[in-house]
Amino acid sequence: MARNRLEPLVNPSSVAVVGASRDITKVGHALLANLVGGGYPGTIVPINPKADEILGLSCYPDLRSYDGKVDLALIAVPVRFVEEKVREALGRGVKAIVVITAGFKEVGEEGAAAERRIAEMCKHAKVPLMGPNCVGLVNSHLPMNASFAPKTPPAGGISVISQSGALCVAILDWAASRQIGLAKVFSFGNKADVDEVDLLRHLADDDATKVVVGYLESIDEGDRFLAAAEEVANIKPVVILKVGVTGAGARAASSHTGSLAGTDMAYGAAFRRAGVVRAPTFDALFDFGMAFAMQPVPAGRRVAVITNAGGPGIMAADAAEEHGLELPRPAPTTEAELKRLLPREAAFGNPIDVIGDAPPERYLAAFRTIQACPESDAIVVLATAQNMTRPLELAEALVEAVDGSKPVTVALLGGEEVMVARRMLAARGIPSYPSPERAVGALQAMADYGAWLARPPRVVTRFPVNRRRVERVIRWHRRSGRRQIGEVEAKEILRAYDFDILEGGLVETADQAVSIAERVGYPVVLKIVSPDIIHKSDVGGVRLRLADAEQVRDAFDLMMLRSARRMPEANIRGAYIERMGRRGREVILGMTRDPQFGPMLMFGLGGIFVEVMKDVTFHLAPITADEAIEMLRGTRSYALLEGARGQAPVDLDGLAGGLQRISQLATEYPEIAELDINPLIVGARGEGAYVADARMTLKAPEGES
Amino acid sequence: MARNRLEPLVNPSSVAVVGASRDITKVGHALLANLVGGGYPGTIVPINPKADEILGLSCYPDLRSYDGKVDLALIAVPVRFVEEKVREALGRGVKAIVVITAGFKEVGEEGAAAERRIAEMCKHAKVPLMGPNCVGLVNSHLPMNASFAPKTPPAGGISVISQSGALCVAILDWAASRQIGLAKVFSFGNKADVDEVDLLRHLADDDATKVVVGYLESIDEGDRFLAAAEEVANIKPVVILKVGVTGAGARAASSHTGSLAGTDMAYGAAFRRAGVVRAPTFDALFDFGMAFAMQPVPAGRRVAVITNAGGPGIMAADAAEEHGLELPRPAPTTEAELKRLLPREAAFGNPIDVIGDAPPERYLAAFRTIQACPESDAIVVLATAQNMTRPLELAEALVEAVDGSKPVTVALLGGEEVMVARRMLAARGIPSYPSPERAVGALQAMADYGAWLARPPRVVTRFPVNRRRVERVIRWHRRSGRRQIGEVEAKEILRAYDFDILEGGLVETADQAVSIAERVGYPVVLKIVSPDIIHKSDVGGVRLRLADAEQVRDAFDLMMLRSARRMPEANIRGAYIERMGRRGREVILGMTRDPQFGPMLMFGLGGIFVEVMKDVTFHLAPITADEAIEMLRGTRSYALLEGARGQAPVDLDGLAGGLQRISQLATEYPEIAELDINPLIVGARGEGAYVADARMTLKAPEGES
Repeated sequence: MARNRLEPLVNPSSVAVVGASRDITKVGHALLANLVGGGYPGTIVPINPKADEILGLSCYPDLRSYDGKVDLALIAVPVRFVEEKVREALGRGVKAIVVITAGFKEVGEEGAAAERRIAEMCKHAKVPLMGPNCVGLVNSHLPMNASFAPKTPPAGGISVISQSGALCVAILDWAASRQIGLAKVFSFGNKADVDEVDLLRHLADDDATKVVVGYLESIDEGDRFLAAAEEVANIKPVVILKVGVTGAGARAASSHTGSLAGTDMAYGAAFRRAGVVRAPTFDALFDFGMAFAMQPVPAGRRVAVITNAGGPGIMAADAAEEHGLELPRPAPTTEAELKRLLPREAAFGNPIDVIGDAPPERYLAAFRTIQACPESDAIVVLATAQNMTRPLELAEALVEAVDGSKPVTVALLGGEEVMVARRMLAARGIPSYPSPERAVGALQAMADYGAWLARPPRVVTRFPVNRRRVERVIRWHRRSGRRQIGEVEAKEILRAYDFDILEGGLVETADQAVSIAERVGYPVVLKIVSPDIIHKSDVGGVRLRLADAEQVRDAFDLMMLRSARRMPEANIRGAYIERMGRRGREVILGMTRDPQFGPMLMFGLGGIFVEVMKDVTFHLAPITADEAIEMLRGTRSYALLEGARGQAPVDLDGLAGGLQRISQLATEYPEIAELDINPLIVGARGEGAYVADARMTLKAPEGES
Repeated sequence: MARNRLEPLVNPSSVAVVGASRDITKVGHALLANLVGGGYPGTIVPINPKADEILGLSCYPDLRSYDGKVDLALIAVPVRFVEEKVREALGRGVKAIVVITAGFKEVGEEGAAAERRIAEMCKHAKVPLMGPNCVGLVNSHLPMNASFAPKTPPAGGISVISQSGALCVAILDWAASRQIGLAKVFSFGNKADVDEVDLLRHLADDDATKVVVGYLESIDEGDRFLAAAEEVANIKPVVILKVGVTGAGARAASSHTGSLAGTDMAYGAAFRRAGVVRAPTFDALFDFGMAFAMQPVPAGRRVAVITNAGGPGIMAADAAEEHGLELPRPAPTTEAELKRLLPREAAFGNPIDVIGDAPPERYLAAFRTIQACPESDAIVVLATAQNMTRPLELAEALVEAVDGSKPVTVALLGGEEVMVARRMLAARGIPSYPSPERAVGALQAMADYGAWLARPPRVVTRFPVNRRRVERVIRWHRRSGRRQIGEVEAKEILRAYDFDILEGGLVETADQAVSIAERVGYPVVLKIVSPDIIHKSDVGGVRLRLADAEQVRDAFDLMMLRSARRMPEANIRGAYIERMGRRGREVILGMTRDPQFGPMLMFGLGGIFVEVMKDVTFHLAPITADEAIEMLRGTRSYALLEGARGQAPVDLDGLAGGLQRISQLATEYPEIAELDINPLIVGARGEGAYVADARMTLKAPEGES
């Protein structure tokens, strides 16, 4: 799909408002009024069969009656007329359509069908369609306000994409009232055609857009989103508020816009991979957006705080520590310089306290010193309005002094007077906030993004594997209609991916068991093999440390007897006998497929760490060696792997290798839906790891579910 | 100290401004101007030797020259004159003094000494002193603005106490500009005399104060603060932002106002005990304060959300789940009623979506239904400004409809228009916020406080103990100059507090060891006893499962030989031999004394749970049975105690009893500074727990440290 296919939507030279209205309470009036009031320089064509003119513009009864060119048609007629109007617009040769009208997918199957028909028509005509059920769009550099939102914000660097029209209105309103400059704003509604991915790609190439800020409830095609988001994030920051993160939230999402929200864990993993900055709250969305639009990304996590009062300085220090930012002391030369410039009552550590009677000049002296020093990557300026503070003058001075070498955020505490200064700063390119915590939070988001930008190139190792063996196992299961792959065959697949599997084999008699035991050497382990028994231990289906032929024989006979008695319906294939492995640390490696984002790997320490402490990390496949190590490090219990409490450190490289191998397996065999290696037993450094037990599940064959 | 001793400070009938100035840049001018401009109804007496009149008021060269009565003296002269002016004011019989001037404790020892002298004079004269180094105070119901903050807020229900003058100014400024009503505001600066505790007690009795909101950097007398805070919290909510919570924060605190911040863990425990609501951020301080001042405390955690757009509803649902609030579906009768009132496109679950075209009347219909229904304890109303919303009318309608039966918070999203509505709501007693998350956050704070108010009466069980035995051990250690109490004697003390101790004894020879082993029965455990060896296992000083006399003899001789070889300097008293205990779950019970809040109990599961996962909970002593159970439940690993993974649940009552006993020990013996029972071995339900190892530390004797 060509990137510039949205050009006629975003930069039309003429716009028709189909359903333009004289009634000022109608959306069709607001659209027209905003186009006119927003200073749109192109031709505006109101369409209304019952009016001659609206807002001084000649009206046409329908698109056919207008004989000029129309690039963009905004359609805001009652829902029953929309299909006809879209057809008419396409017939008239428009190059882009926005359907404002609601009452489609979000109200039920009938609406969904109508929506599909409209989308199909547009697709056939190769005309981009935005909506239905949306607020429209704004291109503030053209300028064009092709939305029914009542406020037009000033032009600036933040572009907004929103799945919710209501939020779009709130955002436009908010930005206008705070003088925050926006570049382009898209309310994409039901995304029958144009969706978040199209918009992201479009904004990546848009020079006016410094940062993309998005509100999303659902993502339909995870792969496409990930690829686009990562591509865009490499060019400019993408900040997204993804709602419906919790159970309660997801319930609410499923009753909205007819779309289902994916699971939060997968979104977390996907955003991290793609370099998308996640906004935890609505406030944070614009806190972050403002900072990214106005300031450079910091080179590191070292923050210097300049304040005129102790309290806010402590709040900033608390917040920095919580966010994993550092507050290093100024270097001796910097400190000497500060001592020369500031009164002796000032504090020269970090926060640097220029004290309550500081006039703007003194602030500036400290600021310039810190801006020039090499030992900080970012600056937070805090001010409470005190006697000598003169917030507006301070703001003016800061605007002059900021040289763009490192990011600066400001928190001004107080009422009317500082609010004026705050707005002035925002209008002049310095992000300012009502509290120290939020000024620091924005820097954290920037530092995280900076770290992602500076990440090493992602090189996914490709291991040589024995694919024939894997395919044989999968074919066999498919043929016999089985979706569960039990221990015996799961291990066979893992062996083909070069996992360490203990010597052993499937046996059906006690004699076979003894014969294999003699071959692999005592002690051995005996485990029941049955597609119907998942928790083997629960039915007495696992016997460890069998030391000789007699023990093996007894164990085999007892196991067959008892399993048959306890689970008479189970189909028992026999038992698996293998050499008893050495001791080591139990861990779990797993894989599951998220409906949006595909294969997702899991890592955790075994037993209670997973089951009670829920101490696991997730990562999307495919994974690099660095990312695998990161997954290990991400658990709270990581210290145990490194050798806490006097134990030897485990084979971390072996573990990371295991994650990379299941990543490759998941990528190469999409028919494997789920996989658990539980446990993998990891030895000390250099000793590797072996699979003690494993199982997999195949996807349902096509046509089943 | 009489509660009304602050009366002349808060309700003076005459105020002198010592250091009143004609220069509008001076604090002495601002003080006078605020008294006049704030409408103070009493007599105002400016004192300035160089002026005849200021702001139309006759000036006096000093307090002596004025022959009327002066209740309150505000002193704002250069620091070198302060002492003299305080003396003069006391001589003149003033009843309260505020020293605004800075340059005392916060600048060094000389300033601290001057501060102590001033405080001493006032104490001697029984005159309350606020400051020095403060902004003053405001009593908005008198009205009196006796501060140099430039703005006077409207009268209302929030009272503020602040250790930071700068924040006090910011708060006054903020409240004034947002029309948030304040009752009394105190900037108490260096708290040479009047401190947070005096102010809390005063505000408890102040009918105009609905909620106390405080900013604190340090608390000097933990006990006094706790007692006062709990007393006040029983009458009205107390919301506190305590900064300096992290390492970096604490470093910043220690360079401010010369005071040291306590550890965050202790503050958390203390605030929880006292029912103080902790504000996590500066924003939250007033988010919570507003809600408490304006709305009733909810009876439970069930929240209903009413919205006109899906997005904000999902945000609220996400936030509710994160905050542990519930979003129950409306009951069938409520749902039926909603269906009758709302259009069929509305959503009738929770959030209840009245949809985008809802006029105020429709909102109101839904609101009244939810307000009357029994299945919600609180309501969040969300609105984005859409075509029909009419925010101001909606706000008006809400003000009329809210009946005070359950708390209501509102989030209005957008710009100028909703801001006006937001301010109107705040001015009319309905807390309103810029985002759904913050409206929900305020309700969570209220629900937590409500749960604290409804807590069962605290009854601390007093166990019969053998104090004589404890005192003997402590005396013996004191006499021999030892502060470390090792395993043998620590167990003796714990036995006196009815802990289960395995039979055993201290031995010096292999023969003694065998003789005790024969008495207690095999198998036995042998452990080194030396004040110099803390980690016994590290030097081979622990031997388990010794099964007969020969093993005991060998183990004893080897232990003596090897410890002497490995730690030749250690003073080895012998070994401790005891019956080998049954298996069970290892836990740690501990106690340490916080410098502010006294004895603090710790609980955690043993080994990795404490050392790697840091999974512990703290609680101040003395503790009740309920609180002890809460400590157990507070750990992430609690499921293991309850019997996760097919194990039997442990003896929770026995564990809780153990916590209560060390609580009593810590309370009865302040000379015990620290205590570790590590591990305590807990059996299955009904089996109790026994002490496997323990140690204590005594406080340094008086005069040492």
